[in-house]
Amino acid sequence: MVNNKIHIFDTTLRDGEQVPGCKLNTKEKIEIALALEELGVDIIEAGFPISSPGDFASVEAISKVIKNTTVCGLTRAVEKDIEVAAAALKSAVRPRIHTGIGSSDIHIKHKFNTTREVILERAAKATKFARNFVDDVEFFAEDAGRADNEFLARLIETVIAAGATVVNIPDTTGYCLPHQYGEKIAYLVNNVPNIDKAIISCHCHNDLGLATANSIAGAIAGARQIECTINGIGERAGNTSLEEVVMVIKQHEKSLGGLYTDIKTQRLNPLSQLVSDTMRMPVQPNKAIVGMNAFAHSSGIHQDGFLKEAITYEIINPEEVGADGSKIVLTARSGRSALAHRFMKIGYEFSRNDIDVLYQQFLLVADTKKEVSNEDLHVLAKAYVPVEA
Amino acid sequence: MVNNKIHIFDTTLRDGEQVPGCKLNTKEKIEIALALEELGVDIIEAGFPISSPGDFASVEAISKVIKNTTVCGLTRAVEKDIEVAAAALKSAVRPRIHTGIGSSDIHIKHKFNTTREVILERAAKATKFARNFVDDVEFFAEDAGRADNEFLARLIETVIAAGATVVNIPDTTGYCLPHQYGEKIAYLVNNVPNIDKAIISCHCHNDLGLATANSIAGAIAGARQIECTINGIGERAGNTSLEEVVMVIKQHEKSLGGLYTDIKTQRLNPLSQLVSDTMRMPVQPNKAIVGMNAFAHSSGIHQDGFLKEAITYEIINPEEVGADGSKIVLTARSGRSALAHRFMKIGYEFSRNDIDVLYQQFLLVADTKKEVSNEDLHVLAKAYVPVEA
Repeated sequence: MVNNKIHIFDTTLRDGEQVPGCKLNTKEKIEIALALEELGVDIIEAGFPISSPGDFASVEAISKVIKNTTVCGLTRAVEKDIEVAAAALKSAVRPRIHTGIGSSDIHIKHKFNTTREVILERAAKATKFARNFVDDVEFFAEDAGRADNEFLARLIETVIAAGATVVNIPDTTGYCLPHQYGEKIAYLVNNVPNIDKAIISCHCHNDLGLATANSIAGAIAGARQIECTINGIGERAGNTSLEEVVMVIKQHEKSLGGLYTDIKTQRLNPLSQLVSDTMRMPVQPNKAIVGMNAFAHSSGIHQDGFLKEAITYEIINPEEVGADGSKIVLTARSGRSALAHRFMKIGYEFSRNDIDVLYQQFLLVADTKKEVSNEDLHVLAKAYVPVEA
Repeated sequence: MVNNKIHIFDTTLRDGEQVPGCKLNTKEKIEIALALEELGVDIIEAGFPISSPGDFASVEAISKVIKNTTVCGLTRAVEKDIEVAAAALKSAVRPRIHTGIGSSDIHIKHKFNTTREVILERAAKATKFARNFVDDVEFFAEDAGRADNEFLARLIETVIAAGATVVNIPDTTGYCLPHQYGEKIAYLVNNVPNIDKAIISCHCHNDLGLATANSIAGAIAGARQIECTINGIGERAGNTSLEEVVMVIKQHEKSLGGLYTDIKTQRLNPLSQLVSDTMRMPVQPNKAIVGMNAFAHSSGIHQDGFLKEAITYEIINPEEVGADGSKIVLTARSGRSALAHRFMKIGYEFSRNDIDVLYQQFLLVADTKKEVSNEDLHVLAKAYVPVEA
């Protein structure tokens, strides 16, 4: 039986919070964790317990309040880290330990100053050790994006044999092209003999703007978990945007062979705002799905088509993602039909000839202002003397 | 001879400016146009001359000051539009008219209320008419992303026969997956008999966060022009980010078979700031290449690796894109090596044992603050009594 469900692993509170200026206190983290559970994510990565006393306390507190979703804590492949994570996760209904180590030669040499063989040993040992505490152990092969595929396959086979239930293939530096990342996942599907014993996870960074495409390429190739954050926050250029991968999968369910997630998409925009407000991390207006302008139309050509039939320019219904209805903004680029539509909305009915004349006046106002407001339109409308007597 | 140059068509001043709140005056547009020429873009789309008197004036003014770069004006497939664009472009050294019409059945039916045959006629007529004024005519097949490939191929063949030098295949609604967009371009390469007479252009929107990946997929399939904007601004979720496609092509020159652009990448960050400031459109901190945090490292694991060897976590040298040197920010997630590094930078040398003790004190400060400042560290350092007597 093919399992088409893509598990959504949210790491807003771990990889997302690991950002200059984004630190949250425990109370704020609990609020976001509860909202993530409501959103329908499958796994909440709540923190990196050994990294600081505050992080430990947050993972512990989140473990107590979350009832249905898996709660996960990050560790290095070090016994002390794993013990501390297990302690923080003690109250979790569904605890997961996320351990791992570098897998690229760059990391093995420059960060660990060791050999591939030692990495295999340490990986197996950490995985087994973590399984002493929990049944659900995810292993991350750091910098897998730049790792040699043959060694990566050996590493993944080793940790699955040691008890890993999920294997995470991070493109840590955001380096891969989508077809390269997809080929890497396909290579593992085809060359790791025990791969059916674990779920493959995508963890992509956005340094080149390709995180969403890479994660989808991974899912097409056989991955069934995607690691992501609300608003794509995270170190440097951030992680994969949860809202983007979820909506790509929803929009392209058919072309993706029936892949789906359990996310309640109507909650995407409210949660985006909660995270942005709590972390004080602005979302740019042109951010896909959750930006202020994501559903705004302003150019004349587009507005005209849009008013005739929303699907000419809109593939997502804003209500589907919890955004306010499409907002038409009037600027110097707006056409006659947008102007007539707005006049109607604010209470004026003009003939086509009237609109032709008013449109010239409107353009003069619009050339001096960024947006033409309803007040401006009232002034125009009240001063207007119809052409026809 | 294979031509591997990807032409960069910047539409910051047309599709980018067509955004709620982003309207610029002529003086501001000239400043940005000159900066774009300095950056090395191949084509500047300066505006949509018939849309307003202000837009006409801007295209006219930009045509006068730009000496090396092609200056382009947008039109619908309407004679009046084309005449007006030609007038605005009169002084341009290298003028291009960009005309086009809807190509998907959704657009043909809902926007134009007509038939495919009429679209073919209007497209050919507009292209020929534009060639009366300029030698360089680009044709856009609006909503090509959702158009039937067989009809799209007929349309493209028709406009090339009518004199189009560039054929633009827009994914107007940001709908396509990268492999689908790539297949569409490949289909045209293989099924339009006169395709070698024109350059294929990608114009992708970012509604699902896939614009960069789609444009690259198009280039892999044979397109040799990418339409994009600084900071990815544009209607709704915006256009393809110029800085992202340029850096993907630069980072992956080899895997992309030698593709290249003529962009002076060191100018990317300064120009990003100019556009953001002039349009008052914020760039989110986690924006790839040009975000404030794009090269910031804060987590302990990452900082430790980064300080050992920058390439462990950094694929782009920040200086290559005109960003200030990588900034290490100290937070509760920072590790000992980042702390020791910063202490050294501000004038203190501590032993490893000292750092162990100071690190605990640092974590207490970090748990109450978003970022630990140099002032905080001076306080810690001065109060510190070494363990060894």
